[in-house]
Amino acid sequence: MNSKIIITIARQFGSGGREIGKNLANELNIAFYDKDLIKIAAEESGIHEELFENVDENHKNSFWDNMAYNTTSFGNPFSSGSDIPINDKLFIIQSNVIKELAEKDSCVIVGRCADYILKSNPNAIHIFIHSNKEDKINRIINSYGIPAENAEVLMIKTDKKRATYHNYYSSGKWGKAENYNLAIDSNVLGISGTVEIIKKFAQIKFNLSL
Amino acid sequence: MNSKIIITIARQFGSGGREIGKNLANELNIAFYDKDLIKIAAEESGIHEELFENVDENHKNSFWDNMAYNTTSFGNPFSSGSDIPINDKLFIIQSNVIKELAEKDSCVIVGRCADYILKSNPNAIHIFIHSNKEDKINRIINSYGIPAENAEVLMIKTDKKRATYHNYYSSGKWGKAENYNLAIDSNVLGISGTVEIIKKFAQIKFNLSL
Repeated sequence: MNSKIIITIARQFGSGGREIGKNLANELNIAFYDKDLIKIAAEESGIHEELFENVDENHKNSFWDNMAYNTTSFGNPFSSGSDIPINDKLFIIQSNVIKELAEKDSCVIVGRCADYILKSNPNAIHIFIHSNKEDKINRIINSYGIPAENAEVLMIKTDKKRATYHNYYSSGKWGKAENYNLAIDSNVLGISGTVEIIKKFAQIKFNLSL
Repeated sequence: MNSKIIITIARQFGSGGREIGKNLANELNIAFYDKDLIKIAAEESGIHEELFENVDENHKNSFWDNMAYNTTSFGNPFSSGSDIPINDKLFIIQSNVIKELAEKDSCVIVGRCADYILKSNPNAIHIFIHSNKEDKINRIINSYGIPAENAEVLMIKTDKKRATYHNYYSSGKWGKAENYNLAIDSNVLGISGTVEIIKKFAQIKFNLSL
């Protein structure tokens, strides 16, 4: 391996993007960051983990804005007098963590606007995973264990949140092909076939012998 | 080869999508359709080729609407009394040609809303090729021979036309990742690397030994 390999994965809810990222990281033998990223961010910043958990991918959450400014239960993690909204501060902290991770070692990062945060990193490739409605709903029910009657609404709401978060913090639109180096419909080749394609892309880009 | 392989390619102007499609067709040893498609459509329908050339990817062209209804220079290719706009009729004829070609044999089809027209064809995969602005402008100048001062404006106008045409005739938005099975930034791996990725995708999908 000649250089660091950074792969960011954005994904529609139910497309299997997280599983694809995890398998890809395993097969390339590199680190994988998803929810864990939040914990690292929390540890590094000294901010209560719950605060990150709840604002993650959910910008303009006035409850948390209020909580942070009006209660001392988490302490005050930010310098006083600043008028940057709390979600934006959390985004900045999380962005710094993502940049540090990408400087340190090869990794796969799922979600968290990592595509935009690492846009100018020459070692990074940016992937978007999507699928058709039926395939996503099946996965949401059968793999994520969501009751059938809630699956579609949850899918729509989650993707809307992801798009809102991404579009608020980046200059490109979530899910628009030109914002990613590779966008794949995971329904055509399934999880393992999709991993194969990303591996092939990484292999040519990074001149790997796999 | 067990079944027909149909590959549609939509592309940003300057991304090298046509060249990628042509090389792909050569390497897979299957037919390639681009401008030629218009000729076939013209021949099959008995409509003057020039009419297709000018309305192609340019819907709501009132000059041609007027020409077709007000002059006898092309004859009258449509049944009298119909109130379907001429561009829509041409689109229907072109769609039928695309469907016939895809029924007949394996092929690569560039542009022409083929992704939407062949959406339900189980042997078809749908590709979108894009690239960054600098790479596209370089290609437009150096490979397409457009003067540097016109390159960017032509790029913007052409993509706008393509998007308008696609969005008018299909239910999905041009350039949105979820409308394609695979969307690739041709700047990362170049023309030959991008062809490799599509070949790999086709190989797994169609169970080919390449």
